Amino acid sequence: MEGVDHLANERNKAQFDVDSMKIVWAGSRHAFEVSDRISKLVASDPAFRKDNRAMLERKELFKNTLRKTAHAWKTIIDLRLSEEEASRLRFYIDEPAYTDLHWGMFIPAIKGQGTDEQQQKWLPLAYKMQIIGCYAQTELGHGSNVQGLETTATFDPQTDEFIIHSPTLTSSKWWPGGLGKVSTHAVAYARLVTDGQDHGVHGFIVQLRSLEDHSPLPGITVGDIGMKFGNGAYNTMDNGVLRFDHVRIPRNQMLMRVSQVTREGKYMQSNVPRQLVYGTMVYVRQTIVADASCALSKAVCIATRYSAVRRQFGSHNGGPETQVIDYKTQQSRLFPLLASAYAFRFVGEWLKWLYTDVTQRLQANDFSTLPEAHACTAGLKSLTTSATADGIEECRKLCGGHGYLCTSGLPELFAVYVPACTYEGDNIVLLLQVARFLMKTVSQLGSGKHPVGTIAYMKRVEHLMQCRCNVQRAEDWLKPSAVLEAFEARATRMSVACAQNLSKFANPEEGFAELSADLVDAAVAHCQLIVVSKFIAKLQQDIPGKGVKEQLDALCYVYALFLLHKHQGDFLSTGCITPKQASLANDQLRSLYSKIRPNAIALVDSFNYTDHFLGSILGCYDGNVYPKLYEAAWKDPLNESVVPNGYHEYIKPVLKQQIRTARL
Amino acid sequence: MEGVDHLANERNKAQFDVDSMKIVWAGSRHAFEVSDRISKLVASDPAFRKDNRAMLERKELFKNTLRKTAHAWKTIIDLRLSEEEASRLRFYIDEPAYTDLHWGMFIPAIKGQGTDEQQQKWLPLAYKMQIIGCYAQTELGHGSNVQGLETTATFDPQTDEFIIHSPTLTSSKWWPGGLGKVSTHAVAYARLVTDGQDHGVHGFIVQLRSLEDHSPLPGITVGDIGMKFGNGAYNTMDNGVLRFDHVRIPRNQMLMRVSQVTREGKYMQSNVPRQLVYGTMVYVRQTIVADASCALSKAVCIATRYSAVRRQFGSHNGGPETQVIDYKTQQSRLFPLLASAYAFRFVGEWLKWLYTDVTQRLQANDFSTLPEAHACTAGLKSLTTSATADGIEECRKLCGGHGYLCTSGLPELFAVYVPACTYEGDNIVLLLQVARFLMKTVSQLGSGKHPVGTIAYMKRVEHLMQCRCNVQRAEDWLKPSAVLEAFEARATRMSVACAQNLSKFANPEEGFAELSADLVDAAVAHCQLIVVSKFIAKLQQDIPGKGVKEQLDALCYVYALFLLHKHQGDFLSTGCITPKQASLANDQLRSLYSKIRPNAIALVDSFNYTDHFLGSILGCYDGNVYPKLYEAAWKDPLNESVVPNGYHEYIKPVLKQQIRTARL
Repeated sequence: MEGVDHLANERNKAQFDVDSMKIVWAGSRHAFEVSDRISKLVASDPAFRKDNRAMLERKELFKNTLRKTAHAWKTIIDLRLSEEEASRLRFYIDEPAYTDLHWGMFIPAIKGQGTDEQQQKWLPLAYKMQIIGCYAQTELGHGSNVQGLETTATFDPQTDEFIIHSPTLTSSKWWPGGLGKVSTHAVAYARLVTDGQDHGVHGFIVQLRSLEDHSPLPGITVGDIGMKFGNGAYNTMDNGVLRFDHVRIPRNQMLMRVSQVTREGKYMQSNVPRQLVYGTMVYVRQTIVADASCALSKAVCIATRYSAVRRQFGSHNGGPETQVIDYKTQQSRLFPLLASAYAFRFVGEWLKWLYTDVTQRLQANDFSTLPEAHACTAGLKSLTTSATADGIEECRKLCGGHGYLCTSGLPELFAVYVPACTYEGDNIVLLLQVARFLMKTVSQLGSGKHPVGTIAYMKRVEHLMQCRCNVQRAEDWLKPSAVLEAFEARATRMSVACAQNLSKFANPEEGFAELSADLVDAAVAHCQLIVVSKFIAKLQQDIPGKGVKEQLDALCYVYALFLLHKHQGDFLSTGCITPKQASLANDQLRSLYSKIRPNAIALVDSFNYTDHFLGSILGCYDGNVYPKLYEAAWKDPLNESVVPNGYHEYIKPVLKQQIRTARL
Repeated sequence: MEGVDHLANERNKAQFDVDSMKIVWAGSRHAFEVSDRISKLVASDPAFRKDNRAMLERKELFKNTLRKTAHAWKTIIDLRLSEEEASRLRFYIDEPAYTDLHWGMFIPAIKGQGTDEQQQKWLPLAYKMQIIGCYAQTELGHGSNVQGLETTATFDPQTDEFIIHSPTLTSSKWWPGGLGKVSTHAVAYARLVTDGQDHGVHGFIVQLRSLEDHSPLPGITVGDIGMKFGNGAYNTMDNGVLRFDHVRIPRNQMLMRVSQVTREGKYMQSNVPRQLVYGTMVYVRQTIVADASCALSKAVCIATRYSAVRRQFGSHNGGPETQVIDYKTQQSRLFPLLASAYAFRFVGEWLKWLYTDVTQRLQANDFSTLPEAHACTAGLKSLTTSATADGIEECRKLCGGHGYLCTSGLPELFAVYVPACTYEGDNIVLLLQVARFLMKTVSQLGSGKHPVGTIAYMKRVEHLMQCRCNVQRAEDWLKPSAVLEAFEARATRMSVACAQNLSKFANPEEGFAELSADLVDAAVAHCQLIVVSKFIAKLQQDIPGKGVKEQLDALCYVYALFLLHKHQGDFLSTGCITPKQASLANDQLRSLYSKIRPNAIALVDSFNYTDHFLGSILGCYDGNVYPKLYEAAWKDPLNESVVPNGYHEYIKPVLKQQIRTARL
């Protein structure tokens, strides 16, 4: 069966040009070309194999990641890869490692918060990896509330140094990736204290380990925080614990772009606007949204291919059973996730544009769009990561029992993905931030201040509060105007209702706390509207390739109408649509599933993922699932001997009725 | 801090008698006493420690389980434990093992499907564990559709034997627990063939391994299928793969209670009613519902205690931050799960009664209630396991970042629980069975046939199709009649709407397939009604203990109104309630959360779980979370050396710019 494509029949059904769709998915021909080349490079290098990951115990697993990371660095240098290519290489290696934090947090923190002088000193060392850094912010007792951190950095004017100290157990740095075993340096966050006065939390570059023998420096207690969710997953990462016992660093290792401490110990603000940090936040969250579409699309690719391979029930006269992808229950769970993967891809693309826009405005000292951009990225981070985590697990369940095997790739994909719901802002905390922004916007609607960007629709509040949906037939739900207006009306009415309920409280903060669950719902409605509207906007662009536009059209309406069906309580309770219209949307959704069905395999082929990157037998390109599952089973360490280790001590005495005298 | 109860303040707030609630939760004073005694026995025996489970590699982990299992058997014998106590002991050891299948599937299969003679031969061997058995049904290519199994058992009249054979790769037995490395015997399911005729799937007792040296018998290929979701979780179990190559067994090893093959090879049905198998199904599913309430209550206990320990934001004038359990967003996610744990507990208790009732009726040849009992248990299995799996993961997220650590216990709890959504009937397949029953019931409403049991409400179809909810104030939602009628009306109307839409299809099967997603929704509505109604029924019993009844009242309405809020789309689209009434339900829900809040810790204390059984630092009874987390971290194998294994090979060459010449 080697070389046979068991999914050829499915691929022949496709009604669009897959190569064109691959370009759309990648974002550009250039992006496709780089991704395609680098992913194949990784897949073909046996040093990067990952199929044995779930079986390794922690120390072996970690050492193996160190090996891969070193091999990747060697490859980057040997092949003189560009920064873009190097970043893709790390991405396709698909294994969390200390380098993620070094390149993704340590270097950006110095770039964003360091003075020019500090950048000139530290960045070349970091770029060449002569030092390896991490980002030490969260503490054992402090996560979301950064202002609550307890670590102190007290200026000692005598020696011109800061004394970094962990005054309590709960002030121990806890979670930073790369901290536990590898990093030589950290950007550590601590309360700045000068002359007995607390100036709040600031960043400091602190050396943790000797560059000679890697041993922790005096006053530094550092280690790994232990096993995390999943077999491999984030256990390849040395998330760390760190305590400072009066560790001294030179004054010039405080990151001083925004505020400084002078030689005399005077605390000063520079004229660099503080809003700059928001620019970084938009950047980081945009990458998180991009990662969401990637993780979700991997899971969907696996579940879709396996759903076409797997057959169950429905055999007629001894013929083959029905492919499970043909069941409407399967389609109604799988296809909305397929549509979500595309939706998140496009909203991620738009966020890239938003980041450029925000950066340009910041450089021109225009901060007017910042609050909106901040709320929008916070909301989209929350929305896409929650939906992706749930979606991966749903894909796993869609694979039935076999989805529970590590060789399906789905358990690891879930375990490695799910912290995205918590890091860089807990998803509920972020939605509350969005809700605060919504309430502010509603309160200003009467004033001259016009809402901009993704909240601009609220300008039409009067219309949206009273408009009536004019959908009369199922096909009417394929009109962008009908869909957009329904989502805008829902979001507006939920926000306005919250604002009205809030106004009944004497103390607004108490009201906000009491109604926070409803406020979260309103924030979700706003964020879903953004994703739907950006998908619709994408369709208004010129999209080349036979049939490509038609497929994206179908996916867009699957996404929108699925949400409308799932949240019909919102739409109905606010009177945006009638029960009849909700029912028509559901009918339209079913027709769309039938339209997607013949294209499903081609739509996941368009992600252009190698079998290495997918890391799943159920999702393998050729669909030859069962022989591969069978073969893989025998590689488990338990199968090294036919009679298991432990038989003589623990099974035989039971069977032979000798348990009372057995030594256990 | 040793011995200090950090949650004492929380415990003092409780407005009810915790000891009385413990009895309610356990089901009876006797059940409480046994559980309490056995759980403490397990917790105090160091042989059963499980805190190192996540760190062991597969072979060690498995051997460790073999050791615990042998130690448990020794304990059972030494202490002369009763069957009930032995079963509790295995339960509190809290580690999947081959014994689960031996006692839970192999023995019941022989009891249910074996003749008296077969039972007399095999059961004593099994009870003494002179043989160890598993339940070999599913195959690599066949799960839900049992009738699609490919393994054959061909009668050979020459030798009076069956030839058990795996004709294809996809016919390999796949998944059976205990099969891979331990079981000496299996009840294997195969297509019975006599004289060239296929009689469908039947059970056979097949010996797999030598009782002398444990080696597989000739013709048997057997092994473990490899790693599964989670670190420990089901990796302590040897789920197995098994192929038969013309394995011969004596004719009397076919389980012959319901049908026989004679010496001449004639296939015959006995006069034992086939419906008996449904009795077993009701039994198994009742235990699954009980397990759901147990797993969910563990997760809720952990998340609730940690939510009282954890503080974040809201510090005033340098005072302590706010306990996260005081945030309404936390309450609105956590308390419905607390209520669900209690709800599932009580519906599980009722299912026990149902099993007794069904058994008595079967013995009296009364099969009239079977279809209803079957639909009801299928639906409740699906509902409770799905809600529990989602609920555990929600509890994990409610613990923020630290919930991602294995020491929180939640990753393992999720990984070990989640297969319950798939085994013993995939949850969606089960809901479709419920839907089929609902459609049949609706179609017979006009006829003289009266719906019985949990579907009896449909007798009042005319009223339920047109009744209007008369809730006018939030407090009205605390009337059992108002809640019940709303849920009954919703379930009825969704079923009737499905039936009407089905009638538009010329081919009913096509219609059922096309509308299956809506049918699943209708089935869920019916099942939720059952849980709500059994909770309300429980409250109508005499419940002693100060304040206990009041707490259960509050939990019951939290459960019902939470569902009403979550599914308000159903209630609104069918016109069962108005948007205003939905909003009042939401208001009432918020007040109920405030009522639960001071009792939350006591309500989870009532589960009476030992710290050993919970297996969670975040959930420890005394709430002394941070020092325990800190201590546990240092036990990770990665912390055995300060400089990690791999430094010289893979980190130093990077730092020292020697990567090009390094040997990786």
